[in-house]
Amino acid sequence: MARTMTSTSEKMIPIWFDELTGKVKAIDQRELPHRLVIIDLDSVETIIMAIQQMVVRGAPLIGVTGAYGVYVAIRDLGPSASDAEITATCHAIRDTRPTAVNLAFAVDNSLTEVFTANSFEARLAIARQAAEKLAAEETENCKMIGRHGLPLIESIFNQKGQKTVNILTHCNAGWLACIEYGTATAPIYTAAEAGIDVHVWVDETRPLNQGARLTAWELGRQEIKHTVIADNTGGHLMQHDMVDMVIVGTDRTTHTGDVANKIGTYLKALAAWDNRIPFYVALPSTTFDWKIKNGISGIPIEKRDPEEIRYIQGLYHEKIVNVLVPPVESPVANYAFDVTPARLVTGLITERGVCRAKAEDIARLFPERAAANRMHAT
Amino acid sequence: MARTMTSTSEKMIPIWFDELTGKVKAIDQRELPHRLVIIDLDSVETIIMAIQQMVVRGAPLIGVTGAYGVYVAIRDLGPSASDAEITATCHAIRDTRPTAVNLAFAVDNSLTEVFTANSFEARLAIARQAAEKLAAEETENCKMIGRHGLPLIESIFNQKGQKTVNILTHCNAGWLACIEYGTATAPIYTAAEAGIDVHVWVDETRPLNQGARLTAWELGRQEIKHTVIADNTGGHLMQHDMVDMVIVGTDRTTHTGDVANKIGTYLKALAAWDNRIPFYVALPSTTFDWKIKNGISGIPIEKRDPEEIRYIQGLYHEKIVNVLVPPVESPVANYAFDVTPARLVTGLITERGVCRAKAEDIARLFPERAAANRMHAT
Repeated sequence: MARTMTSTSEKMIPIWFDELTGKVKAIDQRELPHRLVIIDLDSVETIIMAIQQMVVRGAPLIGVTGAYGVYVAIRDLGPSASDAEITATCHAIRDTRPTAVNLAFAVDNSLTEVFTANSFEARLAIARQAAEKLAAEETENCKMIGRHGLPLIESIFNQKGQKTVNILTHCNAGWLACIEYGTATAPIYTAAEAGIDVHVWVDETRPLNQGARLTAWELGRQEIKHTVIADNTGGHLMQHDMVDMVIVGTDRTTHTGDVANKIGTYLKALAAWDNRIPFYVALPSTTFDWKIKNGISGIPIEKRDPEEIRYIQGLYHEKIVNVLVPPVESPVANYAFDVTPARLVTGLITERGVCRAKAEDIARLFPERAAANRMHAT
Repeated sequence: MARTMTSTSEKMIPIWFDELTGKVKAIDQRELPHRLVIIDLDSVETIIMAIQQMVVRGAPLIGVTGAYGVYVAIRDLGPSASDAEITATCHAIRDTRPTAVNLAFAVDNSLTEVFTANSFEARLAIARQAAEKLAAEETENCKMIGRHGLPLIESIFNQKGQKTVNILTHCNAGWLACIEYGTATAPIYTAAEAGIDVHVWVDETRPLNQGARLTAWELGRQEIKHTVIADNTGGHLMQHDMVDMVIVGTDRTTHTGDVANKIGTYLKALAAWDNRIPFYVALPSTTFDWKIKNGISGIPIEKRDPEEIRYIQGLYHEKIVNVLVPPVESPVANYAFDVTPARLVTGLITERGVCRAKAEDIARLFPERAAANRMHAT
């Protein structure tokens, strides 16, 4: 597993197939913002490690990584592998993280396509194409989310007499979590390009601080005004008219509008509701779950390693180290996601437009998916 | 400013007058849970530093520290100091932190008593007595808060068929924040003594992690079952019936029931409300503000050093170090408290009993204070 430090200021994407070396490469998001390190995802073990340890994270990106995982699995298992072996290896990749639907969908879809061919070479080509197609679709989705989200920000900007629009976001649903533009950040980037004065309140997002580490880094690179805050702060800011809207991403949203996202999202949705501030969720339709009706009881919530709470990573004397915060003997629990009930969500910003977080509105925007789901259910 | 490491397992209090050396001593809470260090508060500068940098913190404790500050100020200014000099020095102590009322009240009350005497010796004796009396009163208050809070926990325990009662708390309102028992922890300690099976969800409480560092340490020492969680977690736990009640302390509560407490408390109150979980605030009556009617617009919220968000303190290779989390160039904002509106508070647990967070109920419990306030207002 080769690792390269880079300091490029060019436009980047978080995962790509490198033609020169024939390898899948990714930004190692564990080291940001302090170091920009590129990692080779050149074995199934590395792919699994990368998803588990959050070298790559964010629903769309782990979907694309899973799809590349199918390619790497087929390549590494070689021409003599049975379909059962390929399936088992790919399912091991698929099951690394339970909450985001994108991972399971990407792996399953790629496998279905792969098994339409018989030769090793054809399957390899199909798997790579499937990953690249998914990456291209996610990019297009994010671009459209930006376009559909723009009028929401624009209208607040105009209502405020063109004063700064303050947007709160939780975790990282930027291009680092997707491929380009991001989901929650797409409307923000699009608004900034359109000359709207935006400022982002960045929840640091404990335990892994994806907000402080990744979103702040992304926004800084794009020269978007932002302020990092402790996750505890949003309610106070909302009470004092310092937040105009909330936009977050999601790891899985039911077709009834319940939103699984990084732990703590529900608390911000409650505060937005209590202060009559619009709370939007930005998502590509790949993140919809067309089966589960009740997100709170139905969506599996990943419990992660307690050490992620105990130890906090940061820079100390030019080194990235982990420091222990609580007494070493105190038990710790680490729930990675929570579910925000649809009733607290003002709207969903999708690649096809904005809709209310209600089954009928979502079905109206994605009638073919909803119909397929109804057929499946009967 | 002498500092001693200690490893005593005896019952401790966070501040005391040491007869042997004639010095005011305190636990340096910045070093917990990793080191138990005692610091001498032997000058006005040290007292101010100790309050500002949170060597001592928690509303009742900074009140007592302020009272000891008056003693140290009179002693250090000496017999030739004018009343104006004494007043100015004590006001510098009083104004170090704006949100907790206890500090201002303790300093002002002690000064009023001090100026009833004329001789240096008499004033010194009065100041020391005032501090010790306040410490004794706070201890007695906390003991009574425990006694009045016990039936609330007991009733949940019995409703649950004597299964574990899960209590969520935010920040540290334990004996480290008070003198003995604590405020929010007093009912918990009292319930545990009464044989009730309690388990505490400890919010780590960013940015300074008083929950993870102090509450977890206190509960561990008292052998109370507990689990440290990221501040983002409480809502998820409440949605899944894993929290039976919330008990927090407060830095200032208006006589109308609005509760200023550590930033993030409001978010937990919203989640408790949304899930019909009782949300209690434990406080001695010294923490009531009898003047302010609207806590959200009226209580000053301290903004602290952004470095407290940027750098997280923890143990690394046996050393306590501070690590940088966000990009060094990202702006950061650090609001220390928020205000939970009375409508979200199930009840206040005071030294005189439990009441609703309503002006008339609070006035009924403390009629003499309410009457004095009304006189003051007219």
